[in-house]
Amino acid sequence: MPTPYEAPLALIRAAIDQAARAVELSSLPGWPEAFGDTADAVLQGAARLARDVLSPLNATGDAASSRLIAEGVVTPKGFPEAYRRFCADGWPTICAPQEFGGQGLPMLLGAAVTETWGGANLAFAMCPEAANGAVEALRLHAAPALRERYLPPLVSGEWTASMCLTEPQAGSDLSTIRTLAEPDGDGWRLAGRKIFISWGDHDLADNIVHLVLARTAGAPAGLGGISLFLVPKMLPPDVGEPPAAGREGLRNDIHAVSLEHKMGIRASPTCVMALGEHGGARGWLVGPLNGGLACLFTMMNHMRIGVGLHSTGLAERAWQLARSYAQERRQGRDAAGAQRPIIEHQDVRRMLLTMKALTHGARCLAYHAAATLDVTLAKVGEVDKVDKVGDEAVRERARRRLALLTPLVKAWCSDVAVEVSSLGVQVHGGTGYIEDSEISQVYRDARIGPLFEGTNYIQAQDLLVRRVIRDRGAALEELLAEMERAARNLEHLDTPAARPAGTSLVALSAPLLAECAHLRAAARRIVDSSGSQPDLPGCVAYPFLQWLAVVAGGWQWALAAHDASRHNPSDPGGPGGLREPSGSHGSHDEFARAMTDCARFYGAHILPRARAYAAAVDSGTDILVTPRPAEI
Amino acid sequence: MPTPYEAPLALIRAAIDQAARAVELSSLPGWPEAFGDTADAVLQGAARLARDVLSPLNATGDAASSRLIAEGVVTPKGFPEAYRRFCADGWPTICAPQEFGGQGLPMLLGAAVTETWGGANLAFAMCPEAANGAVEALRLHAAPALRERYLPPLVSGEWTASMCLTEPQAGSDLSTIRTLAEPDGDGWRLAGRKIFISWGDHDLADNIVHLVLARTAGAPAGLGGISLFLVPKMLPPDVGEPPAAGREGLRNDIHAVSLEHKMGIRASPTCVMALGEHGGARGWLVGPLNGGLACLFTMMNHMRIGVGLHSTGLAERAWQLARSYAQERRQGRDAAGAQRPIIEHQDVRRMLLTMKALTHGARCLAYHAAATLDVTLAKVGEVDKVDKVGDEAVRERARRRLALLTPLVKAWCSDVAVEVSSLGVQVHGGTGYIEDSEISQVYRDARIGPLFEGTNYIQAQDLLVRRVIRDRGAALEELLAEMERAARNLEHLDTPAARPAGTSLVALSAPLLAECAHLRAAARRIVDSSGSQPDLPGCVAYPFLQWLAVVAGGWQWALAAHDASRHNPSDPGGPGGLREPSGSHGSHDEFARAMTDCARFYGAHILPRARAYAAAVDSGTDILVTPRPAEI
Repeated sequence: MPTPYEAPLALIRAAIDQAARAVELSSLPGWPEAFGDTADAVLQGAARLARDVLSPLNATGDAASSRLIAEGVVTPKGFPEAYRRFCADGWPTICAPQEFGGQGLPMLLGAAVTETWGGANLAFAMCPEAANGAVEALRLHAAPALRERYLPPLVSGEWTASMCLTEPQAGSDLSTIRTLAEPDGDGWRLAGRKIFISWGDHDLADNIVHLVLARTAGAPAGLGGISLFLVPKMLPPDVGEPPAAGREGLRNDIHAVSLEHKMGIRASPTCVMALGEHGGARGWLVGPLNGGLACLFTMMNHMRIGVGLHSTGLAERAWQLARSYAQERRQGRDAAGAQRPIIEHQDVRRMLLTMKALTHGARCLAYHAAATLDVTLAKVGEVDKVDKVGDEAVRERARRRLALLTPLVKAWCSDVAVEVSSLGVQVHGGTGYIEDSEISQVYRDARIGPLFEGTNYIQAQDLLVRRVIRDRGAALEELLAEMERAARNLEHLDTPAARPAGTSLVALSAPLLAECAHLRAAARRIVDSSGSQPDLPGCVAYPFLQWLAVVAGGWQWALAAHDASRHNPSDPGGPGGLREPSGSHGSHDEFARAMTDCARFYGAHILPRARAYAAAVDSGTDILVTPRPAEI
Repeated sequence: MPTPYEAPLALIRAAIDQAARAVELSSLPGWPEAFGDTADAVLQGAARLARDVLSPLNATGDAASSRLIAEGVVTPKGFPEAYRRFCADGWPTICAPQEFGGQGLPMLLGAAVTETWGGANLAFAMCPEAANGAVEALRLHAAPALRERYLPPLVSGEWTASMCLTEPQAGSDLSTIRTLAEPDGDGWRLAGRKIFISWGDHDLADNIVHLVLARTAGAPAGLGGISLFLVPKMLPPDVGEPPAAGREGLRNDIHAVSLEHKMGIRASPTCVMALGEHGGARGWLVGPLNGGLACLFTMMNHMRIGVGLHSTGLAERAWQLARSYAQERRQGRDAAGAQRPIIEHQDVRRMLLTMKALTHGARCLAYHAAATLDVTLAKVGEVDKVDKVGDEAVRERARRRLALLTPLVKAWCSDVAVEVSSLGVQVHGGTGYIEDSEISQVYRDARIGPLFEGTNYIQAQDLLVRRVIRDRGAALEELLAEMERAARNLEHLDTPAARPAGTSLVALSAPLLAECAHLRAAARRIVDSSGSQPDLPGCVAYPFLQWLAVVAGGWQWALAAHDASRHNPSDPGGPGGLREPSGSHGSHDEFARAMTDCARFYGAHILPRARAYAAAVDSGTDILVTPRPAEI
């Protein structure tokens, strides 16, 4: 019998509260006063749908996979009904702009909901996530007529979306895209092949809005000659040609021609899409000609945070399965000869605490990025007034921060999900290798995170080259200073009077301060020598990202421990309105103690990994540039 | 089209030579003078079978899985034929004792062959490996009549073996085994259920010799009341009862009643075995009554080294697939605008070097353990004279060392295979997530290593409690001193005259010496306080194992770099007779340079992980014993 996924409401609400407080969301103009109540209702509703509808389809969807038949992709049993319920309950609309039918709720709240879908059923969750990204891209870059036609059904979930970038020869390097677009009437006709298109075809919705990167005749070579096109699966009936049989309009010439057989996320159809093999796929330009990459990156950045959130959900799922197994499974005996649940064994506790420390650290960092996104939007729910209200300097700072956090969240949360799901398998012993155990699917599903929406190395390069070296470390310095403030705030609270013996948080605050100083010095060396050492960024980007990420996780745990310490049931707290943490922890005291223990564990067991990443960064180009390819 | 696995002969022969030299195998009485030539012929034969017969069945076996029908387990297409070929070529016999039909070759050579099978087809390789372990257990512990009856067909491969330990309630804790044996004539009748029995039934051979842990009536509770029984699938015709229809004798009452659906190694049938559901399974005691665990551990320790070797093969396979993909796949452009193979990208090189440094380090450590096993046997091929020849003090020292290395090899090599296969997936980008890529199966297959034959935590506990604390660090101190000698030998060689600028090995020797000192101090603290802190070993065992393992890997790379430096075509070297490394490296100079580069990489990028493990060890029981289970 499957173990249902349960959204960890106490931890989620703590993370929301923490992020809202850290970025001072409540100071934003128009911040809803009743955010706490709204958040409670939304999170509880999401938890119910996740547990009752999406989670039960996770294993069955994996076993059945999506299939391609002559009429198109058929998703596993139950998926179309689940998607209808998902839309009927209004979930696609929650963070979408109100003028197109959305509820305009904060991205921070949407982040928690996105995590929940990922934890319950990643394969399913990927479908609406692409629509969210497309809504953002179209809202910002599409012409008014396109927005009016396509945004309302995307916002309602009536239609879904896909992102069509990759071609066989163009993966991480999009400059070699060959799909061709030619002018045709009021629009364009496209021809080409796209691969690895998640939810490129399916039977959940009547129409799919494909956002397709293509090249136009005579466009400059390279990335500056790529444009973004909207290519619907079904042409709305009044577009250029007479409607065919049904009201839904004419089938456009974009088809799934095969599906990949994958290690995981098997219910999610990964399509090879053929465009224009029967006369040309009709499309419409989004954003400026040859400016497609920037428009696409609106969607891509949204989806990168989404990968981080989904990965956090998977890690949480692994943790729930492992903890539950460890509470039930008995091996070994206590002093009285009774068999003990394995959660009492020290090494099982070490694994579970590692899982929790990484998962909640990843969650807090991803939520922090989502809250920062809310600041960039300045006024939640009234996005068209963005440029009229708020403090532009605050928004600009938030944009810098978000640019720094996005690759960090995508890469670290997905790496964390791989590690945490592997630990989850290990806690299960041999049982974890059996598909019935459910943890095995989590392990397979999690492995996609570091690969898609830009491999984690692409994230590292983005982080180091575009977000650190380009501004000579200015945005990084803002972040390091903020991390140091968090560590010092912890030191101030961490007095012998405030904490009983053996619960001091110096195990976290001391290495956090030390690593901030080390990172500052290393970043300065990299910035100073990158001009004279062109190979340097490529050699150190990935360990640099790992280093900054594990320190950022420590920062988030410092905030969490701080919040837990000052937590008081009579204090409604910040805008997150965290008043009644419930779930696995019975009381405020227990919750606070568990958070403090985990923060100390992070400092003693996780944060020291920074030393290994630092050594790799310090070795610079040495060794990595020496061996010729034949010698590797 | 599948990519064939190619045994890495140059690296394998270098590792054999290195291990033979390090444990001074050539000084053993009876060491074959022509070992170098024999080794060449054996390795080349194994490489051919692996490439031509076993590797092509790897993906097809995974896709088909073994299946259970009324008559028993049916293995995937091609497996029975491959096994017949495997036996006809004499592979089961190579290291088996000569008096039972074996060739009595060194375990060190057998180790290289075992690695090769694991790299080509792990699911297949597990079957003969169990027989090797059973041969050792029966040779040392079975009564002469049993040995004479069962060893010759096991040695020839005509029959195979299985190890039946686990029951639903008895996994890591074998004390709760319930399978019951009752006296019956000249033997016993057994009844019970065993789970997770690899190759517990199949169609490759006529008979399967099950070694079964069971309890007898009135036996003491706990581990001291468990006995080991030999339970054949088919009763030889002259055993007690009249032969049935066929010459093969009577079917014994031990049956596979279901198979597990697993994440990987799907061609390997993982059986639930029912004993005695139709009158009792006939069995014969092996070793003393109630002394089964010690006998079983002869087989188990053999198979733990086997897991290390198979895992090394898988890691090698991942590395080959990733390197080959990185040489072919083109993304990004060089200064002249031409598309570059991704092996020229720095981060791909970083991943490939990490894979190679870990894989070859694991290989050398596992071979070192196998060579140490040869020393304990004292005279290769004449095992019955063990107690009559050689220097008992040398053998005793080798036994201590082997006991220390066995858990290290099992746990580290299997952890390495998980990490290296994950890096292999990452080098492939999105393609790595597709089952057609082959690397995806390696990733799934590798995950079994840390789970079976004792989870890696069980290894860590064995290492710390039984191999370090029990002798108050004596065996560990011998190992640390040997590691320090290797580091100092490197320093002596590592002069500016010997190495051009930028190739100094101080990047390896310096941290290696430092870590040996840190480990010595930490072990002393653990030994001194384990009496007063009963929770301490459980809290620190796993990070202690990881720490010692990553340092031992550095030690092996120090030996490798040393061998590469003094390598000279006119010097036939040690008993491994490494004269002509071939394969991926064209010349001695290139080979030596590649080894030196990789050793430096290990020192700069891998060995620093020791700092993180040390921090976890240093935090001792702090944090891990604090939270109550409800607070985790």
